[in-house]
Amino acid sequence: MTTTTIDSPTRPGDTAAAGPLSGLRVLELGHFVAAPFCTRLLGDLGADVIKVEPPGAGDPVRQWGARHQGHSAWWSVHGRNKRCITLDLKKPRAKELALRLAAQSDALVENFRPGQLDKLGLSEAALREARPDLVIARVSGYGQDGPQRDRAAFGVIGEAVGGLRHLTNHPPGNTDLPPVRVGISIGDSVAGLYAAFGVMAALWRRDAAGRGDQRGRTLDVALTESIFSLLEGALPEYGALGTVRQPAGGAIATAAPSNAYRSRDGVWVLIAANSDPLFRRLADLMGRPELAGDPRYQGNQARVANRDTLDAHINAWTAQHEAAELERMLEAADVPATRAYTVADCAADAQFRHRGMVREVEDAQLGRMLHPGIVPQVPDDPGAIRWAGPSVGAHNEEVFSGLLNLSADEITALRQEGVC
Amino acid sequence: MTTTTIDSPTRPGDTAAAGPLSGLRVLELGHFVAAPFCTRLLGDLGADVIKVEPPGAGDPVRQWGARHQGHSAWWSVHGRNKRCITLDLKKPRAKELALRLAAQSDALVENFRPGQLDKLGLSEAALREARPDLVIARVSGYGQDGPQRDRAAFGVIGEAVGGLRHLTNHPPGNTDLPPVRVGISIGDSVAGLYAAFGVMAALWRRDAAGRGDQRGRTLDVALTESIFSLLEGALPEYGALGTVRQPAGGAIATAAPSNAYRSRDGVWVLIAANSDPLFRRLADLMGRPELAGDPRYQGNQARVANRDTLDAHINAWTAQHEAAELERMLEAADVPATRAYTVADCAADAQFRHRGMVREVEDAQLGRMLHPGIVPQVPDDPGAIRWAGPSVGAHNEEVFSGLLNLSADEITALRQEGVC
Repeated sequence: MTTTTIDSPTRPGDTAAAGPLSGLRVLELGHFVAAPFCTRLLGDLGADVIKVEPPGAGDPVRQWGARHQGHSAWWSVHGRNKRCITLDLKKPRAKELALRLAAQSDALVENFRPGQLDKLGLSEAALREARPDLVIARVSGYGQDGPQRDRAAFGVIGEAVGGLRHLTNHPPGNTDLPPVRVGISIGDSVAGLYAAFGVMAALWRRDAAGRGDQRGRTLDVALTESIFSLLEGALPEYGALGTVRQPAGGAIATAAPSNAYRSRDGVWVLIAANSDPLFRRLADLMGRPELAGDPRYQGNQARVANRDTLDAHINAWTAQHEAAELERMLEAADVPATRAYTVADCAADAQFRHRGMVREVEDAQLGRMLHPGIVPQVPDDPGAIRWAGPSVGAHNEEVFSGLLNLSADEITALRQEGVC
Repeated sequence: MTTTTIDSPTRPGDTAAAGPLSGLRVLELGHFVAAPFCTRLLGDLGADVIKVEPPGAGDPVRQWGARHQGHSAWWSVHGRNKRCITLDLKKPRAKELALRLAAQSDALVENFRPGQLDKLGLSEAALREARPDLVIARVSGYGQDGPQRDRAAFGVIGEAVGGLRHLTNHPPGNTDLPPVRVGISIGDSVAGLYAAFGVMAALWRRDAAGRGDQRGRTLDVALTESIFSLLEGALPEYGALGTVRQPAGGAIATAAPSNAYRSRDGVWVLIAANSDPLFRRLADLMGRPELAGDPRYQGNQARVANRDTLDAHINAWTAQHEAAELERMLEAADVPATRAYTVADCAADAQFRHRGMVREVEDAQLGRMLHPGIVPQVPDDPGAIRWAGPSVGAHNEEVFSGLLNLSADEITALRQEGVC
């Protein structure tokens, strides 16, 4: 499987520099979004990720999203840089092989329902027997213990329990429409990101020369808690003052003007003019310099109190201009602004292109595909998109023979017995 | 400054186990949200974080959000576990002290505008001269290079450039209201999280016994790219098929029914019944078993195509019941559901309480405060909330004398000269 990174010329050495995590091996017993997103981040920075899937259709996420030539386009990204093997973990022989792979791994990332790996004979104790210093990241909806640990982990439910869905709405009374979903699997992604951070923290403590303790640790990452952790001052404010954070629509509760305003051609344009000098520049640009002198709009506090009339003035102005014209004028006036980018805007953005965030990658199944680049960027050791999401079991031979020393005959037998 | 963790009895050893990052020192040259959030995550897991602020009012974020006894409640959380010192980095003597602190640190996290630290004499070269193997995490709006690196880094603008704001909206034609902000500083937080992951990845590569290269690395984390990286399959789908991901309001574009529905008492209740068995159970519970047999609602594809009429049926049912009753009935029927939690609901949640995610902490300035717990959870080495956000310069003496061996007289002189 070959991959060529074609159009990110500004990241020299991208295919040469292996990334800070090269030499690290991570076993993924994951499916759907959270655990696989975690291992994708690790793999992007160079880790050898071995993803275990059930034989047959593999991870159900392979069927998600829009299809291209019968394959999920998302999978091309979600599965990139991973070695994909199959094991039917309900079979004792498969369990044994999984334990042998764990023995050769630094870390394991899983997002089974709590308790389910125990039933399969892959409890923490069993994994640690195979590899005493294994770092284990367990990602779940609600955590590994507590009265609700067995609740089904649906992202939309977990995001609501984490306190986010209440906030992605317009202020009470402004609409009968429901609060919006963030539009992406934000809970799963943030949980995966926390897991990646936790894995590296635990590995540093285990391995650091002179400071390491040679000990494995377990991470217990809950989707609900990952979201809840992002609520800024909402909890201490509630505890100290009894105030309950309420949704503010397109605005920011504590600063104005900052909102999305509609252009003549129907595009939403964000304008953040929430300081006195910025607002003065905006008022001048709008041809309404008197607004900056109006006591209703002098100082942020006054502007917040009179946000609705202020936003109406700005909307009346934006409605007269096309989005591209607004962007040009606002940039010239040094007022922070942008259209709300669609993915097409992202793909065309000069800054994203310059920084290798939009890349053409050769996918063995799908041909040339666009992939997002690697985050975080490590300019002198960036890692690479070594290959796109592989087919189910694409690396069975390579892994079973290379890591477990199985012969071709043994691998054939495993396949015939439905172990892989 | 003493801190007592009062109400998380289920995490034994919480104040005893120091966390996987104890022994690690991180210098923060940060302000506002992204870099300070990164170091808070590192400090929660045990790192010694030294935060440098300008003398006087310190980090402007100390004034953000609701006040309690004249202090920001958010700061109690945002500044916790940090040693706060002051340095006027425009003064040569302050720069020299900052370099001496960098020399004693494993990592540095900063979110100045690109180029600004260079002007202050704290370029990467100067920092690496002080500490050759320093890991440096630079967080910015658009990245350290490229045509737009100098653009002002407003979160709402960066989130829109990352492609998120286009998606937090209702489908075109459903409303004239603008797309909502996520309601929290999602771009800054996710960038901070990526920086924390990157710092640990770089430290592992530097320090790992046998595998480390003793080399410092620089991370270049952009807010825009951090958001863009979460867009699932949007980019490959656009590249391969030309489809531009569009907002879906409270729903999921590819699954139904999944939405927020209003209860009789006006509460939004999430229901995720987007599989055949779940939908059958929901239809039974609604007293409308015929819906599950209706060809318009048989199979997910049909339900997605007829989402609007299906949601209307569900809304008609939820409007007859109070939220608490709906939650009870849906749980009994094993249909994933929840009210959209406010922060008050989060604070009262039995699972969050059980898992130490809602804690009472003694804040030296504010008294007893509610803090969110530590994410990711490391059950046998959890780290601790050692103290709440300190006052400006609270640790000047301790750090200047303990780490830099300055005498009391020298520290007094620094203060008189406005260096600290």
